Amino acid sequence: MQLLISIDRKDERPLQLQLYEIIRQMILSATLKAGERLPSTRSIAEQLHVARNTVVLAYERLIAEGYITSQIKAGTFVNDRLPDASVLVRNAHTAVVPTGKRIRLGKIPSFVGRSPELWRERSMRPKFDFFVGRPHPKSFPTHFWQKSLTQHLTYARGAMTEYGDPRGLRALREAIADHLRATRGIDAVPDQIIITAGIQGALNLLARVFLSGTAQSAVAVENPSYQGAAFLFGSYGAQIHPIRIDENGLDVSELEGFLGNLIYVTPSHQFPTGYTMSLDRRLHLLDWAYRTGSYIIEDDYDSDFRYDGPPLVALAGLDRRGQVIYLGTFSKSIGAAIRIGYVVLPHHLVDQARIVKALLDNCSPWLEQAVIADFLNEGAFLRHLRRIRRSYMAARDALVEEIHDRFPGSLLSGTEGGMHMMWMVPRDLPDPDEIQRRALACEVGLYPLLASAAFEYGKARRFRDRAIVLGYTCLSAEDIREAISRVAAALKTRRTARTGQLSRHNGDREDKAARRN
Amino acid sequence: MQLLISIDRKDERPLQLQLYEIIRQMILSATLKAGERLPSTRSIAEQLHVARNTVVLAYERLIAEGYITSQIKAGTFVNDRLPDASVLVRNAHTAVVPTGKRIRLGKIPSFVGRSPELWRERSMRPKFDFFVGRPHPKSFPTHFWQKSLTQHLTYARGAMTEYGDPRGLRALREAIADHLRATRGIDAVPDQIIITAGIQGALNLLARVFLSGTAQSAVAVENPSYQGAAFLFGSYGAQIHPIRIDENGLDVSELEGFLGNLIYVTPSHQFPTGYTMSLDRRLHLLDWAYRTGSYIIEDDYDSDFRYDGPPLVALAGLDRRGQVIYLGTFSKSIGAAIRIGYVVLPHHLVDQARIVKALLDNCSPWLEQAVIADFLNEGAFLRHLRRIRRSYMAARDALVEEIHDRFPGSLLSGTEGGMHMMWMVPRDLPDPDEIQRRALACEVGLYPLLASAAFEYGKARRFRDRAIVLGYTCLSAEDIREAISRVAAALKTRRTARTGQLSRHNGDREDKAARRN
Repeated sequence: MQLLISIDRKDERPLQLQLYEIIRQMILSATLKAGERLPSTRSIAEQLHVARNTVVLAYERLIAEGYITSQIKAGTFVNDRLPDASVLVRNAHTAVVPTGKRIRLGKIPSFVGRSPELWRERSMRPKFDFFVGRPHPKSFPTHFWQKSLTQHLTYARGAMTEYGDPRGLRALREAIADHLRATRGIDAVPDQIIITAGIQGALNLLARVFLSGTAQSAVAVENPSYQGAAFLFGSYGAQIHPIRIDENGLDVSELEGFLGNLIYVTPSHQFPTGYTMSLDRRLHLLDWAYRTGSYIIEDDYDSDFRYDGPPLVALAGLDRRGQVIYLGTFSKSIGAAIRIGYVVLPHHLVDQARIVKALLDNCSPWLEQAVIADFLNEGAFLRHLRRIRRSYMAARDALVEEIHDRFPGSLLSGTEGGMHMMWMVPRDLPDPDEIQRRALACEVGLYPLLASAAFEYGKARRFRDRAIVLGYTCLSAEDIREAISRVAAALKTRRTARTGQLSRHNGDREDKAARRN
Repeated sequence: MQLLISIDRKDERPLQLQLYEIIRQMILSATLKAGERLPSTRSIAEQLHVARNTVVLAYERLIAEGYITSQIKAGTFVNDRLPDASVLVRNAHTAVVPTGKRIRLGKIPSFVGRSPELWRERSMRPKFDFFVGRPHPKSFPTHFWQKSLTQHLTYARGAMTEYGDPRGLRALREAIADHLRATRGIDAVPDQIIITAGIQGALNLLARVFLSGTAQSAVAVENPSYQGAAFLFGSYGAQIHPIRIDENGLDVSELEGFLGNLIYVTPSHQFPTGYTMSLDRRLHLLDWAYRTGSYIIEDDYDSDFRYDGPPLVALAGLDRRGQVIYLGTFSKSIGAAIRIGYVVLPHHLVDQARIVKALLDNCSPWLEQAVIADFLNEGAFLRHLRRIRRSYMAARDALVEEIHDRFPGSLLSGTEGGMHMMWMVPRDLPDPDEIQRRALACEVGLYPLLASAAFEYGKARRFRDRAIVLGYTCLSAEDIREAISRVAAALKTRRTARTGQLSRHNGDREDKAARRN
């Protein structure tokens, strides 16, 4: 689809402003209708011979102002309800109140935002799926759960019928405090801990504590970053300041230009690069927070899995001034479907956070909190971690070996812990989107950076053009070997095809692709 | 505690502005310190001989601007972190960045709000407790839960380890659609339903859909209203427009002066009055929504319990234009600790709501969703409702009889359904706060309107000076008879004491109270 538009090069206004106004007028005049899909920024850029970023900036303003919505992978669409009252008086739902005042209809619904897609219908998934962040289905402690659930229900009395403490079950908060002291060097009392609906629930709690005001707010995030955090902060209207990630983690020096007071980081195993923030950088980050009176949100989503050497002490374990907020979860170590995570807060934020949690959902569900408390207290959790760590390590070893063997020149990062690694694809292979398509054809799910719940800001494209994020914890070592060998074969065919020798295995599409080259 | 302040009557500025500036200066100069408790509005009003509302307005501005925080029942306190940079540079956490620009520290944390207190530590509760909204602990279907949880865990495969559909489990959404069609006249398909963390979770989802913009928003609520809704909307910065409730429910005519586009109502069994919105009012409310392009949030929290006659069709069942959003919950019918409720949305809001839900918590926990789906599909839910309806009706009958017998002149509302009724105390009894104190002394928990998760706006005080909200579903008919007879005796003593004849049953406190009179 092409839009019938042209840019006036003599007009002195910036191209992006012209483009914004043209598209806005097309929407207001219903030339572009509600729900209609807009052409991609790339195709408009080509059509008008302007830089792609010019189109991106125009689109971003239209998104921010509520004219259009961008949906990951689906495209960009004209919104059903538009911000201009001038259009909306033509809307069937609109009218004028008897007093003659215009109804402010354009204000609602006002939400503009996007979310990561972590859910995939099981029947729609490839046989060998490397999507990130999923524990192995067989790792779930089914028997323990059955026994403990049954016991707790027998003795629940009012615990099932009543609301609980908004902060969460006391027994679980005590067990978590013990666990964090032993494993992460964090010295917190149960009163500093609030149980949440996973890390996403904790991020919402913090977004409301920190970003509720009407004043403009700003949040620094890692670049690349986790969509679930970056998109959430963005949906609250916060300005997002992406900070460069390198192999030592966050480039703290870039913070000097940032005037906000809140940063979100994943120092143990950066998402998605897998890099670990060095101790030196950690100390510099804390120093920045102390000098500027800022808060650090430390998301420690997968540090339960460490294969080579001990993990570094958490930032929260180094903090002596109550400026680090620590997030943990059982989604990775036990299962995402239980939706239990937690936030550890400095004492002076606990009261506000408790009110926010009560307003969010009154409290988290009781029954599985009680089970997890048992699981931690009886030592079963540590035994569980030891067992699955062994099987994840075998999967990791197989994946590292296969990638290096079959794709020389590959760079793998984040292999020493966690549940995923990042693969920087060597230059002689196709780009990650093409690899994804070829892999899918042989039942292997590989996910380029933007399709793996990660996001990269800005024009530099340091990662998104070359990175594939490999979650390996759902697959056995054998499955991994089989999957990577299939991908290698599929890509070899491709390379053969490129040089003009059409492969017998491929049909029309391959044929056309080859002729275009 | 008294503040050393005086008002200049010759100053031409409004008294409330003067008072605001005096208190603000005391905070900025640290005469009033962080965390310090302010005197009540009543005592300042008495001290300065000004109307109490003058003080209330000054306090409200200080709250809105972040200088002080009000906590229900605890009082009003100076905030730890203040909005003025001028103060904050003295704060230990504050500094100046190397570039010389002042850090905008005052902005965070920015949350200002309050929450209802639905949780009460069991050991702290009176023996006979009439707090609202708690199902009877023995009503919980323990055996069904144990069997179904065990089964689902056995066959869960990846369902425990993976994220689910942000909208919730398909099987549960189908079961809810069937249930709503049969019992509430609502014709919704599963795709319109999103499973949430109870009604509070649903309200958050809607608050983000409707109130996320930076533009000023406004929400109409019933007066009196449910704290969990009113306080939540307020915490998003929405202007709250309270609309008068009478025995036919919402006084729809008051909406003509309201310029917003969103209203929150509890038409089946208004919280806290228990009034049912008449069909005529329902049609007028829908008409208002259609004329003004507005949305109605219908909170149907306890309509599973109806003792006299069939319930009215839900507003969502009358709506033909997709402008009613329906909220339901299993907190009242099964148990609050499972934290499962749902929202039924018009088709055109589903996509936005799904994104918001994914950003809130990715999805609701899987296991108990699966159990509730079974519970509904196997007919066990309707049998369960029939059984507990009988026992709640017996409790209701006992309570109505006791109140009318022992306190002639009492008005009871909302008795024909739900889990609570509202008692308008006759004029010859003490005020509700005093009744609460007297009842507590004989182990009976009675809750005046503001202590029962309800809130009343404005100066009219139509309800809060006379209303006690009685939740009766946790108590047996025998317990209720015993409790009310204890309260009657305690109040009789009181009346005796008032006339000077000290009761032998009462100790020092009673003695002093009598002497003060």
